[in-house]
Amino acid sequence: MAPRPTPADKFSFGLWTVGWQGRDPFGHATRDAIDPVESVHRLAELGAYGVTFHDDDLVPFGADAATRDAQIARFRKALDETGLVVPMVTTDLFQQPVFKDGGFTSNDRDVRRFALRKVLRNVDLAAELGAKTFVMWGGREGGEYDVAKDVQAALERYREAVDVLCQYVIDRGYDLRFALEPKPNEPRGDILLPTVGHALAFISTLAHPERVGLNPEVGHEQMAGLNFAHGIAQALWQGKLFHIDLNGQRGVKYDQDLVFGHGDLLNAFALVDLLEHGGPAGAPAYDGPRHFDYKPSRTEDIDGVWASAAANMRTYLLLKERAAAFRADPEVVEALAASKVAELAVPTLGDGEGYAELLADTSAFEEFDVEATAARGFGFVRLNQLAVEHVLGAR
Amino acid sequence: MAPRPTPADKFSFGLWTVGWQGRDPFGHATRDAIDPVESVHRLAELGAYGVTFHDDDLVPFGADAATRDAQIARFRKALDETGLVVPMVTTDLFQQPVFKDGGFTSNDRDVRRFALRKVLRNVDLAAELGAKTFVMWGGREGGEYDVAKDVQAALERYREAVDVLCQYVIDRGYDLRFALEPKPNEPRGDILLPTVGHALAFISTLAHPERVGLNPEVGHEQMAGLNFAHGIAQALWQGKLFHIDLNGQRGVKYDQDLVFGHGDLLNAFALVDLLEHGGPAGAPAYDGPRHFDYKPSRTEDIDGVWASAAANMRTYLLLKERAAAFRADPEVVEALAASKVAELAVPTLGDGEGYAELLADTSAFEEFDVEATAARGFGFVRLNQLAVEHVLGAR
Amino acid sequence: MAPRPTPADKFSFGLWTVGWQGRDPFGHATRDAIDPVESVHRLAELGAYGVTFHDDDLVPFGADAATRDAQIARFRKALDETGLVVPMVTTDLFQQPVFKDGGFTSNDRDVRRFALRKVLRNVDLAAELGAKTFVMWGGREGGEYDVAKDVQAALERYREAVDVLCQYVIDRGYDLRFALEPKPNEPRGDILLPTVGHALAFISTLAHPERVGLNPEVGHEQMAGLNFAHGIAQALWQGKLFHIDLNGQRGVKYDQDLVFGHGDLLNAFALVDLLEHGGPAGAPAYDGPRHFDYKPSRTEDIDGVWASAAANMRTYLLLKERAAAFRADPEVVEALAASKVAELAVPTLGDGEGYAELLADTSAFEEFDVEATAARGFGFVRLNQLAVEHVLGAR
Amino acid sequence: MAPRPTPADKFSFGLWTVGWQGRDPFGHATRDAIDPVESVHRLAELGAYGVTFHDDDLVPFGADAATRDAQIARFRKALDETGLVVPMVTTDLFQQPVFKDGGFTSNDRDVRRFALRKVLRNVDLAAELGAKTFVMWGGREGGEYDVAKDVQAALERYREAVDVLCQYVIDRGYDLRFALEPKPNEPRGDILLPTVGHALAFISTLAHPERVGLNPEVGHEQMAGLNFAHGIAQALWQGKLFHIDLNGQRGVKYDQDLVFGHGDLLNAFALVDLLEHGGPAGAPAYDGPRHFDYKPSRTEDIDGVWASAAANMRTYLLLKERAAAFRADPEVVEALAASKVAELAVPTLGDGEGYAELLADTSAFEEFDVEATAARGFGFVRLNQLAVEHVLGAR
Repeated sequence: MAPRPTPADKFSFGLWTVGWQGRDPFGHATRDAIDPVESVHRLAELGAYGVTFHDDDLVPFGADAATRDAQIARFRKALDETGLVVPMVTTDLFQQPVFKDGGFTSNDRDVRRFALRKVLRNVDLAAELGAKTFVMWGGREGGEYDVAKDVQAALERYREAVDVLCQYVIDRGYDLRFALEPKPNEPRGDILLPTVGHALAFISTLAHPERVGLNPEVGHEQMAGLNFAHGIAQALWQGKLFHIDLNGQRGVKYDQDLVFGHGDLLNAFALVDLLEHGGPAGAPAYDGPRHFDYKPSRTEDIDGVWASAAANMRTYLLLKERAAAFRADPEVVEALAASKVAELAVPTLGDGEGYAELLADTSAFEEFDVEATAARGFGFVRLNQLAVEHVLGAR
Repeated sequence: MAPRPTPADKFSFGLWTVGWQGRDPFGHATRDAIDPVESVHRLAELGAYGVTFHDDDLVPFGADAATRDAQIARFRKALDETGLVVPMVTTDLFQQPVFKDGGFTSNDRDVRRFALRKVLRNVDLAAELGAKTFVMWGGREGGEYDVAKDVQAALERYREAVDVLCQYVIDRGYDLRFALEPKPNEPRGDILLPTVGHALAFISTLAHPERVGLNPEVGHEQMAGLNFAHGIAQALWQGKLFHIDLNGQRGVKYDQDLVFGHGDLLNAFALVDLLEHGGPAGAPAYDGPRHFDYKPSRTEDIDGVWASAAANMRTYLLLKERAAAFRADPEVVEALAASKVAELAVPTLGDGEGYAELLADTSAFEEFDVEATAARGFGFVRLNQLAVEHVLGAR
Repeated sequence: MAPRPTPADKFSFGLWTVGWQGRDPFGHATRDAIDPVESVHRLAELGAYGVTFHDDDLVPFGADAATRDAQIARFRKALDETGLVVPMVTTDLFQQPVFKDGGFTSNDRDVRRFALRKVLRNVDLAAELGAKTFVMWGGREGGEYDVAKDVQAALERYREAVDVLCQYVIDRGYDLRFALEPKPNEPRGDILLPTVGHALAFISTLAHPERVGLNPEVGHEQMAGLNFAHGIAQALWQGKLFHIDLNGQRGVKYDQDLVFGHGDLLNAFALVDLLEHGGPAGAPAYDGPRHFDYKPSRTEDIDGVWASAAANMRTYLLLKERAAAFRADPEVVEALAASKVAELAVPTLGDGEGYAELLADTSAFEEFDVEATAARGFGFVRLNQLAVEHVLGAR
Repeated sequence: MAPRPTPADKFSFGLWTVGWQGRDPFGHATRDAIDPVESVHRLAELGAYGVTFHDDDLVPFGADAATRDAQIARFRKALDETGLVVPMVTTDLFQQPVFKDGGFTSNDRDVRRFALRKVLRNVDLAAELGAKTFVMWGGREGGEYDVAKDVQAALERYREAVDVLCQYVIDRGYDLRFALEPKPNEPRGDILLPTVGHALAFISTLAHPERVGLNPEVGHEQMAGLNFAHGIAQALWQGKLFHIDLNGQRGVKYDQDLVFGHGDLLNAFALVDLLEHGGPAGAPAYDGPRHFDYKPSRTEDIDGVWASAAANMRTYLLLKERAAAFRADPEVVEALAASKVAELAVPTLGDGEGYAELLADTSAFEEFDVEATAARGFGFVRLNQLAVEHVLGAR
């Protein structure tokens, strides 16, 4: 049996996830809206520790100040009652028609200014609620037509926006970091910063790169056919895994937002193994929230919504158990050694060695036995089979 | 009629392109090998200005010193006779069985040392031949099985290798820069640095980032469903387009290496327009070689090989003509303005404006007419249709 | 300049295309609804000959009889005023929540019965309006979870539904044929009858296969990375191209519904060439409506809507011109012969020849010069380059 | 622990699978050739019941009669010694340069005649060895360039070839059926009959459709992003699953041929469940060979080859256990009922009901409570979570 989730597991959910009403490009809503207060209570009962939201999830776009304040107050009260925290807040620059060509990179400068103002206000709210991470998914930053968007200028504007926001947060003394969320396409034909890589590269150009990291999402990388665990490894290696969006995706197609594990189960295992044991000496490589950004399928009613929320956590915990057993299995330990997995952590050059010493080492080249080395098998298939059998709970 | 290519167009070809014999995963070679000297002469006749190669294209792997010297001498002579230059040299760390788990990131440290030695030797040759760019495609750096590769360690080793090479080139005083070539997969299930973005991000972590840029390939980005012109724009924006590989690809599938333009023709147009007019004030954004990394289809004989080489250059020149006409068309100029394409180059904040001023500007938020702004159309479809009609030569 | 479309070109549009308001999975509507009567008038002015609709496009789902009749009467009047015809009608079994698990193949039998009734009513309307084709896109017939749908049973129910509808149409004496529209996914994770091939195969199992054909859509096949022109060729070869949906798609991603030609331009050329010259002796291979099933991008206002409608027709006509010039070019004629394209129409066995005669023909095997034959080049790249240059209007 | 495979499990392997030497588009062979006799012995030891081959796997292309006879005799002896059977034989019309534009559909008629002769000879061998299935993968039937292949003519020639072969087999009285193997692309840009659907559709046009079925391969459908279990369900429903190729693929990319289960594990589970319990009343839906068409990764040595062969069988057996437990779990039984999975097997029309009765049933439409029905949840996510937990061995 899967262990039950507790707040120590750091599971969090967006209001927009359980609250998704099932509207899709070809269909109307199949469920009623859920009051955010109700969601907070139900998520707490299920064992979550945190809840997150877009500004417009909590307060309707364009609401007056009184409505806004009242809604925030009700939400705070629910947090207090349940002990749920708000580890992350995010911003909606995509639903409203005014953002149809993007927020920070709309061709229309007035829209860009409005977008910046909207986010600044939301940053204040995030800080006020104690969030440590402010996620920005630029879902509308992009285009369908290559001639209609000057991508270099767009990146310049994107940087301008993020630099302004960082300066603001620094000046206000907020304990808040930004996390960019890449996605290759949908709703735009091509979205700027389409992958973990592009976003990491962009961050390296910022005025305050230390303030900005990533919030990668399983399905977003898999929509480009990329290996999610590989992307997370690069983000970790560059010190930029600030937050993570867990869900399921079945290949290169529209964004499915399935329950975590209901897509590529082996890659989900590799991911959990990486998060839980990928640090130095097998320590966890990431200690932030395990945030589920999924959609309960449109076929489900409200009971199905809560069952699906629970399913995300159960699958994570089961994979965590599988990963621990995998790491502890003596046959796996032996197979990892046979495959020289740990040897990759040994520097290629020896202590104090530079290229000069390498060039002088005839064993490395002139006398290197290419054929014998080439003939050695790595045993990767056997190792992977052990992983598959652990995933199957068969060892 | 298409203009004829001349060396001023800076077209270059790899020896391995016209020299490809047609071996593929399911079939034997359909053509004989071509002597590199013959290729140099034929490419010169066709109007190319440069020729490039992997070490093993020119000198068989494991050849003795005499064979190597003789082969290099013959090649130099052909260059002298034809005036062709060698703007780029690249390295083969993928064909030999010894590199079956990669070169710089093989789990086997001995292989990593051997790989580094092989590249160091090839770097000397590149410098000797006057190449300005040394391309590294890490086609075998990656894996099929998530548990068999410690990706963080692999990136660490990758960095170590590139840092050593940079130091070597700096110390030797070579006028040579490195260009990494990303690819998402094939021949490995997942290749490290799978896209332009991941490679740019990696470069930002290097000891000598100024020495290292990119050599993006059309088909490699398109294999991940990414917009190649977008990727090139980000590379240009980050000052990292050191070299480029032009070819054709028909969507998300195996690496096709078709003739340039024989894949996504509209994106090829956008690319040529970007390279030729994407700099400040419409100047060329890139002045390096236009390098074709394609394969003459396996169905072709030797005449078909040279016809296909010529086809690459013709298509580029035709698209260049189309792009010039597009930019000069008054209706396009008007449509670009209507779509506010240039407005994106205007900073979002005014001169001297910071967030404080923006927050004080009620016209940006409190009094902003969201609905009126949202209702404005961008005219992107009309603009794109003008581009399509220019591509079709219909205006 | 592109010729202007006239009704003789047989261009038709769905009410839902120009009428799309821009709602997508991440954004609200950006445009107001258009009165179908207005659409009829505008499309007629632009040169279209036909208009099509889903039942719910014309009459709101659940409307009472009076509303329905009034709306149909207004629509008929607009048709009479403009001369536009209704060559095709289709059915909406996807938008309403009741169809969340499909119409004909919902796990819920009550839903299946309701769906059948809805379609029967709509078939009457189609016949009444003189439509010759009734399209059925089963966008919700499918699932996300393999264990939740008995696919064999689903296909059985699908067949049952189509058989009933065919019998109804036959008994009523309607001059109406059905056309199934395949799509691989979106809005369901996997849709039944995902490609042209699967739908053709399904049709072969029906009680009245002669009554049922296909309505393939450019983007739907391209979402699976399939060659649309190839799919159309197989549909034509099996006598099943009853209708066609033209639009644009940029690769394997969500369903983009761009303007025709704004995606894979070379495949669009091949398609138009096939439709216009792919019949015996170069006659048109298809004489039905050229129906555009596209969406004016969400960034466009109402002017952009009509500009985009016009763009579809212009691009088709331009490609038709290009294809005619390609077929007439003596160099193309020669290149087609060199590539033996027409030789494929010659039967492999001679007149009166069977396997016995073939086995007796030593020239076919025992004395066949494998090497000499293998060495012959097909000249495909040169031929394709001629096509590219014709597309570019450069010959 | 996984049960050990026995011949009763009907596992079979191609000689070309374990015998793959690791040549790929970017690399030379990493392993020596294996004598087919050795493979027969090793596969028998591992618990397989059958072995399959392409003509050219067993006898080198172009070998003289004596060599051929000797090689066949040695192979037969190994079969006799081990008890292994040859349930299937297949044909190689792809490796030799002469087939560079295909076999049955080459533009060159001489090649088509040669191909037919080659296959006829191989059919005799298949019959002689007692094979019941003759697989034809038309890997080279297709093209890269739309204008270079008349697809309608190609399908006509394909049909001609298959009709001739069927007639031959019927006339000779062979107890042999043909199975076509679809693939979307690679090594050709687009392959004819790209999916299960296209091949089923093609079969419906044949002179002897009862003689021809399918040999679908996991990875081939997944390369087009299609759901393999869905494709198999349609093949079963049309009575055409004559043989099956099991392996692993990680999404839309080049053909990986991984070990079964080393790709999409959840879909592999659904597949095994379908094969083992998808018949009427939960009986096996398929009783033919479970044939593995995979490649031991290029990184492996000969020990890794045999370990990988064993891994295929172990994973199948483990998934078979998981599927049995899933079907037996009372909570699953209840969840399947709640999701109305079996209700889909109930005809939509009642006994003796036709459209007239349906039209007269006001409960089906006029009085149907659309809203109440729409509000019911299907419980699919919960059901799928139960499946995931069974796959994980957690229930």
